[in-house]
Amino acid sequence: MLEAMATTTSATRQPARRVQVTVVEAGVGRPGRDHVVGEEPLEIRVAGPGQEATRVAVTMRTPGNDYELAAGFLFTEGLVAGHDEIATIRYCADAGEQQYNVLTIDLRRPFDPAAIQRNYYATSSCGVCGKASIEAIEVRCAGVAEGPVVGSDVIVGLSETLREQQRLFDRTGGLHATGLFAADGSLLLSREDVGRHNAMDKVVGAELLAGHLPLRDRIALVSGRSSFELVQKAAVAGIPIVCSVSAPSSLAVETARRLGVTLVGFLRGDRFTVYSGPQRIDLAPRA
Amino acid sequence: MLEAMATTTSATRQPARRVQVTVVEAGVGRPGRDHVVGEEPLEIRVAGPGQEATRVAVTMRTPGNDYELAAGFLFTEGLVAGHDEIATIRYCADAGEQQYNVLTIDLRRPFDPAAIQRNYYATSSCGVCGKASIEAIEVRCAGVAEGPVVGSDVIVGLSETLREQQRLFDRTGGLHATGLFAADGSLLLSREDVGRHNAMDKVVGAELLAGHLPLRDRIALVSGRSSFELVQKAAVAGIPIVCSVSAPSSLAVETARRLGVTLVGFLRGDRFTVYSGPQRIDLAPRA
Repeated sequence: MLEAMATTTSATRQPARRVQVTVVEAGVGRPGRDHVVGEEPLEIRVAGPGQEATRVAVTMRTPGNDYELAAGFLFTEGLVAGHDEIATIRYCADAGEQQYNVLTIDLRRPFDPAAIQRNYYATSSCGVCGKASIEAIEVRCAGVAEGPVVGSDVIVGLSETLREQQRLFDRTGGLHATGLFAADGSLLLSREDVGRHNAMDKVVGAELLAGHLPLRDRIALVSGRSSFELVQKAAVAGIPIVCSVSAPSSLAVETARRLGVTLVGFLRGDRFTVYSGPQRIDLAPRA
Repeated sequence: MLEAMATTTSATRQPARRVQVTVVEAGVGRPGRDHVVGEEPLEIRVAGPGQEATRVAVTMRTPGNDYELAAGFLFTEGLVAGHDEIATIRYCADAGEQQYNVLTIDLRRPFDPAAIQRNYYATSSCGVCGKASIEAIEVRCAGVAEGPVVGSDVIVGLSETLREQQRLFDRTGGLHATGLFAADGSLLLSREDVGRHNAMDKVVGAELLAGHLPLRDRIALVSGRSSFELVQKAAVAGIPIVCSVSAPSSLAVETARRLGVTLVGFLRGDRFTVYSGPQRIDLAPRA
């Protein structure tokens, strides 16, 4: 039931909008039309049985896969421990024209609003001290110590595979994507969003709702840069290998090393840089 | 005094870190060194005279220009109305090894912690309804209705100018930049950060502390995409023309149109797309 609900939300809103523009070339302007990526706020509320819903977060996101986004967000931020805690996910019929921008997750157990402060602000917003945050995350991601060893040819192939999937990206140029791959490099699913962290939460949420967590044998590829937040979310979902086509931050590298995540950056052509956990990549001996 | 304090903070932490990596090319790995962009949490606290400091926000940022970042953030989020409200900005000596990641702004007037909920969550996090948020911002940015008319050659020249300034970007590949330009296209200042919104807040904060707001005759260029948040921050600072080298989101376009901001995207070579306010760009007549 949850899975069915999750897959039917994509059609409710358009992920791209058409707008009138002026295209300027060599100083001459002409009217034109352009597709821009959809960006709208999503308010996520949580309620236990018989409880009033509590507003947990508002995120600016691209409409589509909202149930996955909400479920993934609650899981990667430590507010929900597994899909069996989730009873239903629903849009709020009483929110008027904002109906599809307000979503409630009903839990099978009581929800303690104090957990928002305790977990969410202690990790994502990071509670001042990166070290304390990383330690808090370590508790929640025991699965990362395992994971496959993959050939460098598998890593090299991920980028092109994800790009082929990103048809929408070509139309608006404004979407980030996260792809989830099997250890042989085959693409399992991809999700897109104006926010990088949302694309990751949608992937994790889809797998959570399908009962597939932890993702011990998987590889994630993000289309942009890798930050602390992305590595944290991947680690909580148990993903052992995280790749990006661009640069990582210092805290992304530090977090990956502490949590045992293999972190690859600047994946371009047949080249890439391994910032953490090179033992999971099978390399040819140097000539 | 404030200006002097603001300019001395850059040297306290390194915006880039050197890390050991494995560089893989055509399946062969070799050890190497790489520079990664610094990412650390910054907690911003605010206090009125004789008040305990209240934690207002924690943002993941690249160390450097922290006073500007904090001042700009408080201004663009509507928590501080002008630089004359700010008495001092200081790092927290009692935060131990996190000393340079915790910062307090002392105001000349009492601070009402309820303003955090009222202003910050009502705009940046957007309080569910984009429309209500835009209306709330409109109240705070009367200056945008004015602004210069600039030639398309000025717009075309911005991108190359900013890129020349972004020496750090070349080393880490992980920094976003915001440049502030005069109407003739000359660069006034640029700031860099792992977060796009932080780079904009640093620019606005630098100008706020120098007593230059509102920025009615200025042009801003952001290195990445333009979101709702970036257009909102620029509008509150009174910047009439906002350009980006990449795609805008639907809510960025909508916000720019409602607030009277000229929004330019995909600024590449001698081409760009005007999504809002084309009357501020002097175009040649079509042949």
